[in-house]
Amino acid sequence: MTRNTEISLRGVYDSLVARLQEVHYLNSVMGILHWDQEVIMPPGGGDSRAHQLSTLAGLSHDKFTAPEIGEWLTQLESAPESEFNDVERCNIRETRREYDREVKVPRQLVQELAEMGSRGHHIWVKAREDNDFASFAPFLEKMVELKKQWAHHIDPNRPAYDVNIDVFEQGFTMERIDPVFERLKAELVPLIAAIKDSDYKPDTSFLQGHFPLAEQKALGQHVIRDMGFNFDNGRVDVSVHPFCGGGDCTDVRITTRYREDNFIESLYAAIHETGHALYEQGRMQDQKALPVSEALTTGVHESQSLFWERMIAQQQAFAQRYCSLFAETFPEAFRNVDAHKAYEGINTCQPSFIRVEADEVTYPMHVILRYEIEKGLFDGSMQVQDLPRIWNDKMEAYLGIRPPTDREGVLQDVHWSGGAFGYFPSYTLGAMMACQFYKALEREMPDIRDHIASGNFKVIKEWLNRNVHSKGKLYDTDTLLKQVTGEPFNPSPFIAYLQAKYTAIYRLADQQAGR
Amino acid sequence: MTRNTEISLRGVYDSLVARLQEVHYLNSVMGILHWDQEVIMPPGGGDSRAHQLSTLAGLSHDKFTAPEIGEWLTQLESAPESEFNDVERCNIRETRREYDREVKVPRQLVQELAEMGSRGHHIWVKAREDNDFASFAPFLEKMVELKKQWAHHIDPNRPAYDVNIDVFEQGFTMERIDPVFERLKAELVPLIAAIKDSDYKPDTSFLQGHFPLAEQKALGQHVIRDMGFNFDNGRVDVSVHPFCGGGDCTDVRITTRYREDNFIESLYAAIHETGHALYEQGRMQDQKALPVSEALTTGVHESQSLFWERMIAQQQAFAQRYCSLFAETFPEAFRNVDAHKAYEGINTCQPSFIRVEADEVTYPMHVILRYEIEKGLFDGSMQVQDLPRIWNDKMEAYLGIRPPTDREGVLQDVHWSGGAFGYFPSYTLGAMMACQFYKALEREMPDIRDHIASGNFKVIKEWLNRNVHSKGKLYDTDTLLKQVTGEPFNPSPFIAYLQAKYTAIYRLADQQAGR
Repeated sequence: MTRNTEISLRGVYDSLVARLQEVHYLNSVMGILHWDQEVIMPPGGGDSRAHQLSTLAGLSHDKFTAPEIGEWLTQLESAPESEFNDVERCNIRETRREYDREVKVPRQLVQELAEMGSRGHHIWVKAREDNDFASFAPFLEKMVELKKQWAHHIDPNRPAYDVNIDVFEQGFTMERIDPVFERLKAELVPLIAAIKDSDYKPDTSFLQGHFPLAEQKALGQHVIRDMGFNFDNGRVDVSVHPFCGGGDCTDVRITTRYREDNFIESLYAAIHETGHALYEQGRMQDQKALPVSEALTTGVHESQSLFWERMIAQQQAFAQRYCSLFAETFPEAFRNVDAHKAYEGINTCQPSFIRVEADEVTYPMHVILRYEIEKGLFDGSMQVQDLPRIWNDKMEAYLGIRPPTDREGVLQDVHWSGGAFGYFPSYTLGAMMACQFYKALEREMPDIRDHIASGNFKVIKEWLNRNVHSKGKLYDTDTLLKQVTGEPFNPSPFIAYLQAKYTAIYRLADQQAGR
Repeated sequence: MTRNTEISLRGVYDSLVARLQEVHYLNSVMGILHWDQEVIMPPGGGDSRAHQLSTLAGLSHDKFTAPEIGEWLTQLESAPESEFNDVERCNIRETRREYDREVKVPRQLVQELAEMGSRGHHIWVKAREDNDFASFAPFLEKMVELKKQWAHHIDPNRPAYDVNIDVFEQGFTMERIDPVFERLKAELVPLIAAIKDSDYKPDTSFLQGHFPLAEQKALGQHVIRDMGFNFDNGRVDVSVHPFCGGGDCTDVRITTRYREDNFIESLYAAIHETGHALYEQGRMQDQKALPVSEALTTGVHESQSLFWERMIAQQQAFAQRYCSLFAETFPEAFRNVDAHKAYEGINTCQPSFIRVEADEVTYPMHVILRYEIEKGLFDGSMQVQDLPRIWNDKMEAYLGIRPPTDREGVLQDVHWSGGAFGYFPSYTLGAMMACQFYKALEREMPDIRDHIASGNFKVIKEWLNRNVHSKGKLYDTDTLLKQVTGEPFNPSPFIAYLQAKYTAIYRLADQQAGR
């Protein structure tokens, strides 16, 4: 009897795996199509692409929400714990979570959202080009409405915005995020003001000038390779908005964009996306098509990109490593620039309009602004038509600057055009986790700065592979953080890091003492 | 009563259309994935790509072979003819044809073939690179075996090779092709020999040299644009084997390849693929997702590429048009080259190893060789292991040359790696149709050479759009040919064209007279 039950449970698990793989490959095709749409597709292909994505989304939804999955899950959940190992139990648990969420949404709404997302991209690209919020507004209204309906289907008893956040950041809600962001505001607004008032301004003149694209590309490829990006399982291209996407962990595609008058933006976008890519390329290979190997949350994903972009590439040891390569690549600009000067130059804090170009001190304010707007759209306290004004008022309140156009304001981000509400908070939650991870690495490897200064990124990549990438969805965020850093999610190290670093760069202690 | 029946038949037709559209979008996704695989995909993505394609092929097959389609077809076929217009009747008829073929093949075999096709591509690329037929042979054996099984499922009473040919060239069988190809052999082998023996050889020295890639690319884009390729609905890229693929008629992607020592090959590959692309871009737009708008056969598709490559771009008027652009682009090589010299230079006949580089006189011999080998593989009279020898013996018999390596012999073509047996005959059947179409155009527009010499390709493109592209699958090949040219398929104009053209270029009449 026991033997028979075992065989049958194993058979059920195998059926579940086969189905999950089918869904995985459909979803990875959508990943390729999305990448293609942003990088490659001719403009006239948009209508068919929308149909392709909607067809695939519908099929993937059908396959994943079929009643037999519910039956299989019920059978598997009733098995004794010893029946399955940790990895298998995680696949069952994560499938249940996802299944319960998906099964509640009508197929028509799923397809409508997929098609809207594809069309919305084009509407947004054009509206942004034309600086014409009015042409984007009706679409945005409809998208918010659909995402409210969608949230209501999933859980009518929770605030719609929390349901949206949960997709990206399981374990986080407005109730948990609000005090974190309020504390951040309270700490950062004065810090940003103090930096603004400081008499000391790092020299950034060498970061302005003409940086030919061919040299920028070569430099980017060099650094991406040093970080350990696997070109056998990935590509680097150009798109309007840098991103990391593509198929699955065997085909990870990152993009960046280039400006001839600024090489730092493009280089650091590439480093950022490479951080994401290393997470994907570092997944459990034998479970590549199953949920256990997936990135834990959007915030944890962001912790990996920011780990490299901010914690590694914005420290002095990194400037030591690459200052001579910068000088070789751009000899005119980098004449007489030493590592410390380069370090200070790439760590200036300066309120600006565009989130993806923002420095690490002002960045969280961009996020908080969007978080507050999304909350407002979902609880009905804000209207789409008022967003340009609301956006600009908040920019003025938090950063002391007012966008001259909506292109540099409410139209700048791709997210809403695809219906990705609740995504923005993850950027800053991820920044906080990145800092927690880096502090743990520093404790484990006290000579980490020497490794960075000598370009030995392999130890870092492998530490992340071991501690984060290969863990997939085995543990929840707080458990993972506790295992790696000794404590659950904690915003304090991030705040302390920013205060210490920028107090030093801008000589804030001296200035206070001097006053 | 009548009214009710009408409504219900219309409803059935609409259900069929909705399903066909779903299948179309799945298939167009596979088109994008195939293109991506040959142009873009990192090498490590191959395993997941094979799974993606096999998942999609399985789903597309399921959707298209569902029993309700058979029921819908039966209902629609019993309707009075007046119930549906020509376009609708064609959609019903073509769906039936395809359905009957697909429904007989077990799903597992469909998936196996899709997966083999994807893996086979990589095996072939490597075998060709390494000049190692032995590493490709086991795969090829298995592929032939599967395609025999596949043919047997479709029609156990017809020769397996005929069933394969039928996929590409409806209306053609070995019985119809054999005499055409025997006649061709009988006419061309002596013509090729006479050309070889001729004392006159056109000067081709100006086609050798160094032709920088950037200039070649710009030249290619110029000519492609002149021909009327719509870049809003297409792209031009680079791949190992030039092809025309992509999504549907709104996203048509062609590729070419470049050699620095030969710009003609790359330019004419681009012209060839543009001919295919114009057919696709010229489809009935409002039926883009339905069978009626599809290309009629592979041979008719090839007639469109060869129409441009051979009938237009290899005539003297084309050389008149572009000789000065060639000279601007490659001033060194084209010093002292006039239009007539250019015309003769790009119309030399010279036996060579590689099919895609062959001239229009020797090309059919490459096709006949492959046709005879495919026949042999399918009727069991030839074994895969003997192919290198058989291939080389035939090359010697037909063209008087023996490939030094399998890379220049049996390993050169992509087709078999994807299981496309029965495809090769269409190249030459298409060449014959192209000649029939051109003769008809010449009769309708006696000043056509002046249009070409002045670069007015628009009239040609629109003539093809009107007479061929927009007709889709409305008529069978012989009917279409009869409508446009006044007679059904006929190889004679092609043979007469080659004989007249090359007799003139190689002064064969003078030589015979002189002897």
